Amino acid sequence: MLSPEMNRMLTRVENGAPMGNLIGRFWIPALLSEEIAEPDCPPVRVGLLGHRLVAFRDSEGRVGLLDARCPHRSVDLFFGRNEQGGLRCVYHGWKFGVDGACVDMPSEPSTSPMKAKVRARAYPVHESGGIVWAYLGPGQAPAAPDIEFMSLPESHVYASKRLMRCNFMQALEGSLDTSHLTFLHQMNLMSKDVFGVGDFQRFSDADGAPRFFCADTPYGMSISARRDGDDDTYYWRVTQWLMPVGVLVPTAPGSVCRANFFVPIDDRNCWWYRIRYQPERPLEQEEIEEYDTGDLDYSRRVPGTYESIGNKENDYLIDRGKQRAESFTGIPSAQLQDIAVQESQGEIADRSIEHLGTSDTAIAQTRRRLINAAQALEEGRMPPEALAASQYRIRAIAITLNRTRTFDEAAALAQLPPVQGTREKMK
Amino acid sequence: MLSPEMNRMLTRVENGAPMGNLIGRFWIPALLSEEIAEPDCPPVRVGLLGHRLVAFRDSEGRVGLLDARCPHRSVDLFFGRNEQGGLRCVYHGWKFGVDGACVDMPSEPSTSPMKAKVRARAYPVHESGGIVWAYLGPGQAPAAPDIEFMSLPESHVYASKRLMRCNFMQALEGSLDTSHLTFLHQMNLMSKDVFGVGDFQRFSDADGAPRFFCADTPYGMSISARRDGDDDTYYWRVTQWLMPVGVLVPTAPGSVCRANFFVPIDDRNCWWYRIRYQPERPLEQEEIEEYDTGDLDYSRRVPGTYESIGNKENDYLIDRGKQRAESFTGIPSAQLQDIAVQESQGEIADRSIEHLGTSDTAIAQTRRRLINAAQALEEGRMPPEALAASQYRIRAIAITLNRTRTFDEAAALAQLPPVQGTREKMK
Amino acid sequence: MLSPEMNRMLTRVENGAPMGNLIGRFWIPALLSEEIAEPDCPPVRVGLLGHRLVAFRDSEGRVGLLDARCPHRSVDLFFGRNEQGGLRCVYHGWKFGVDGACVDMPSEPSTSPMKAKVRARAYPVHESGGIVWAYLGPGQAPAAPDIEFMSLPESHVYASKRLMRCNFMQALEGSLDTSHLTFLHQMNLMSKDVFGVGDFQRFSDADGAPRFFCADTPYGMSISARRDGDDDTYYWRVTQWLMPVGVLVPTAPGSVCRANFFVPIDDRNCWWYRIRYQPERPLEQEEIEEYDTGDLDYSRRVPGTYESIGNKENDYLIDRGKQRAESFTGIPSAQLQDIAVQESQGEIADRSIEHLGTSDTAIAQTRRRLINAAQALEEGRMPPEALAASQYRIRAIAITLNRTRTFDEAAALAQLPPVQGTREKMK
Repeated sequence: MLSPEMNRMLTRVENGAPMGNLIGRFWIPALLSEEIAEPDCPPVRVGLLGHRLVAFRDSEGRVGLLDARCPHRSVDLFFGRNEQGGLRCVYHGWKFGVDGACVDMPSEPSTSPMKAKVRARAYPVHESGGIVWAYLGPGQAPAAPDIEFMSLPESHVYASKRLMRCNFMQALEGSLDTSHLTFLHQMNLMSKDVFGVGDFQRFSDADGAPRFFCADTPYGMSISARRDGDDDTYYWRVTQWLMPVGVLVPTAPGSVCRANFFVPIDDRNCWWYRIRYQPERPLEQEEIEEYDTGDLDYSRRVPGTYESIGNKENDYLIDRGKQRAESFTGIPSAQLQDIAVQESQGEIADRSIEHLGTSDTAIAQTRRRLINAAQALEEGRMPPEALAASQYRIRAIAITLNRTRTFDEAAALAQLPPVQGTREKMK
Repeated sequence: MLSPEMNRMLTRVENGAPMGNLIGRFWIPALLSEEIAEPDCPPVRVGLLGHRLVAFRDSEGRVGLLDARCPHRSVDLFFGRNEQGGLRCVYHGWKFGVDGACVDMPSEPSTSPMKAKVRARAYPVHESGGIVWAYLGPGQAPAAPDIEFMSLPESHVYASKRLMRCNFMQALEGSLDTSHLTFLHQMNLMSKDVFGVGDFQRFSDADGAPRFFCADTPYGMSISARRDGDDDTYYWRVTQWLMPVGVLVPTAPGSVCRANFFVPIDDRNCWWYRIRYQPERPLEQEEIEEYDTGDLDYSRRVPGTYESIGNKENDYLIDRGKQRAESFTGIPSAQLQDIAVQESQGEIADRSIEHLGTSDTAIAQTRRRLINAAQALEEGRMPPEALAASQYRIRAIAITLNRTRTFDEAAALAQLPPVQGTREKMK
Repeated sequence: MLSPEMNRMLTRVENGAPMGNLIGRFWIPALLSEEIAEPDCPPVRVGLLGHRLVAFRDSEGRVGLLDARCPHRSVDLFFGRNEQGGLRCVYHGWKFGVDGACVDMPSEPSTSPMKAKVRARAYPVHESGGIVWAYLGPGQAPAAPDIEFMSLPESHVYASKRLMRCNFMQALEGSLDTSHLTFLHQMNLMSKDVFGVGDFQRFSDADGAPRFFCADTPYGMSISARRDGDDDTYYWRVTQWLMPVGVLVPTAPGSVCRANFFVPIDDRNCWWYRIRYQPERPLEQEEIEEYDTGDLDYSRRVPGTYESIGNKENDYLIDRGKQRAESFTGIPSAQLQDIAVQESQGEIADRSIEHLGTSDTAIAQTRRRLINAAQALEEGRMPPEALAASQYRIRAIAITLNRTRTFDEAAALAQLPPVQGTREKMK
């Protein structure tokens, strides 16, 4: 439960709001690489932290992320021509490079000093894991974190996204909340190993009241949730919160890993980025097809878009007969179930009327961390997590351990060995 | 004509507005019984006085009307499972009975005291006449009024509703206003006895300037409108206003009776509940079909909804050729004609620019009564009409009387004899 | 570049805003004559300067332009019956003539004095050039200007309109801005003489940085834009700004002329009226077909409406393949190209973030003139341009002149000889 003021602090990102400023200090997903697949392909719209941007890939394959408004008279650069070496506004032909420099201004005399002075607002980007990452904060961008999937071969990674018509925080909270697996996603789990936890599923199904142990880390928080396993074991799920909007979701050792990022478009909409990665082998064709067009785990999308076919207007395709007989919700796919309940909390959930329990421990701690960091930044103190690029050698894991083992020991198993060699960072 | 301030007082119902508080002190229709026809059927959404609610029928047939937001973290209980003995939220499995008590909280340890403390906000309901009535006010609900159709056999009553995209007050005013019959509904009346007034139709058609006599009553107001009849008679229509939002509409003695309730969903939308009842016999199949799927009196609805096919977006299906040649408006069905003109007054009509005439007498008096009662309630004085449950032994009537008879005598004929025995009231 | 305050002053027209007041002092297009083609035809909705109006043609062919709200209880007169000699509200039958007088009030006793007192708000209108012009200001309307097309035979004139979902000022600025021809409309121009400038097209295509010379005139401003022509010539385009919202667009001598009017519906929507006229001969059938249903210059419209099929929701039908290979934008028709970029500047463009160049000279001067006139009117000084009805003997022209000739000489060539006889003005 939060006061209305603290809820506002937690959720609002537009127009210089503290939480928007905080998130701006981190590298966040801006779009999928596939959205601008080829050099000189059409530009695409990008909404990020309340900013209206346009992304394009230039003739040399470099990505530009510009304020969508042409500096001349604000025409939308989305309609622009992506030409040799830059994006040209169609109104008067002003052309900008990926760095925002004006490379042509044909509506002014060739002697005009304007061309050298006018720049489009451009943001630093960096591409890895099938995602174009952006830094929207002031000053020099910090080093980008090296999350495991970022340096895997392309063949090992599958990135996707879906639109959510609610504040990012509801989506983030859902991803940190293992308790709801027992309910919301029940039955989905019977037919197939949707969550990649195999035999452990029966422990999730049986125990809806996990006990939470949270530990602050340099990158955010390690969240260990303990359920009863067999007689002498506990079933542990160690979730990693990557401050501010990332989550590594537990899967069983050896299975496909998953990461989520919940990126605010504005106060009332966000993108759910979802990355599947298999550190040990390329993803199989069958796996990719399930992610791309399946309907079990992923919400099916409107062709040509990243919006779910199931949505608020059609009650997320709820089938009341199936809700009675087949699945807990009657809503197809685990992802759409999440979208349904999280959007249903309201465009921006009112956290002043909640009743939190012990199963909401991780959520409460995450909120506090975020609010504290946003307040500190307002007072001029940088979030140290934004400068912790080298600290991301972790996974999320699902395991059973003897009941004598503690949560520290569970969390320790989620550490990865240090990287061999160094990875080049982009600015 | 009202000042902008008085118009606001008259029309606004959300967020503790005085008129919303006043209406909350009365029993009002919340939904049709048919919307939750069977025990354990899917829950349905209910919007009432700005509140977002969910209604369901439990395994024993009892109706629950709860705040739609789960007390845990505000997930919409509309997506809930209506299970044995209660409605279960799909996010974490919290389950609530019709009284709002939490009967299961499986995401918390079984020893947690939370389950006993947390309650969903539940509202008292009562079912009669094909309608689920609700009391949204504070404290103990008063006795429910015994309007004639409420204690008739089911076979004698037909209840329906239609969405109106305007403030409830415009709809209520239209129902109290017999003058418009002469114009808006003209021609509809030629082919069939839509309004159940038979031969009297020619008097309505001929005289568009009725004289109004209003008398305050314990339940609201008795409104006698006098038109010229034959040489030695007047044609009287005695309408009953059931404070705050109910109306009994005159029909000829012996014919099917009609009642209207205009229930605010919020400031800019309302439900038009319409009840047909025949005190003397079951309704005939043909009558019910006309009410259900006809297009003469009732606005045809979008299948599976209570919204009219004709609406603001399609100009209420106006046919200008028919307007010229066949009916006064070119709009099909008397009900849709009402919806068209009343919605066209604006989402909330601006009553500061009106020019009221003598034909608006009943409207002006009703407004004053409502505003006075709302102001009195703000000052702590209960509306006596909310406690007048036993005073509803009345009908609305259409009759001709010799010109020597007064409006008191006309109104007296609308009294019903006292009930035999007593009727059980529900809370 | 304007301060936010000056931008507000320039763009806002609703609720007594200074710019709305200024525009109200001029005759502006209210609707096309074809929208109310016949006496006693159905009334139509008109939105103008934030006012909701209804237009109708009475039995004698006179046009009425009334506030859409019936003075009785605000029912929309759009649903009214256009009967012999007036428009009758369908709710209670009140009937109004084109002058707003109440000619029948059948819901009141025939002895009532109300009928003589109540009036609908009616605005002066005047019909010419296929357009119904209206005066929305206070007091007596000034004489209507005699723009050339207004007194041509009907056969010589074609008027049309399209909805634009942005503030009128962006549309007006686009029409004053010859520089964008070189870019936005490039390629359209290759296949056909869309702009009626014939051989001069190659000069427009070659020189995107015209030099602007603006001269204040009694009716507004004469804007001469000079491009390089052949070795010894300049190519001149002399555009006429008809204060406040009209533009005469240059075409080559002898070809079909064009005029634009950008009329505010409200702060965020406007009508683009477009008039084609050939002073010397009737328009040919082929020309009219191209204007009516073609797709080269005119934006194709949704049948039965004046809205473009291409619009914001479908990205103006942009075809990225054609943008690469065939036209500069990939958007069909020059008109839709204008609508696309101008709407893309935002519902109301933020002029505080612009970077204006020399090619924006005419735009900057027009803004200043409008802001000054609006401010002067607030201080009680009438805009002299509103009283300059006799000063409209001008055309817009496209010509080449020897490089020794000045802009004054170019502008002088756009003068028409004085009219023979006098033209009757309507009020």
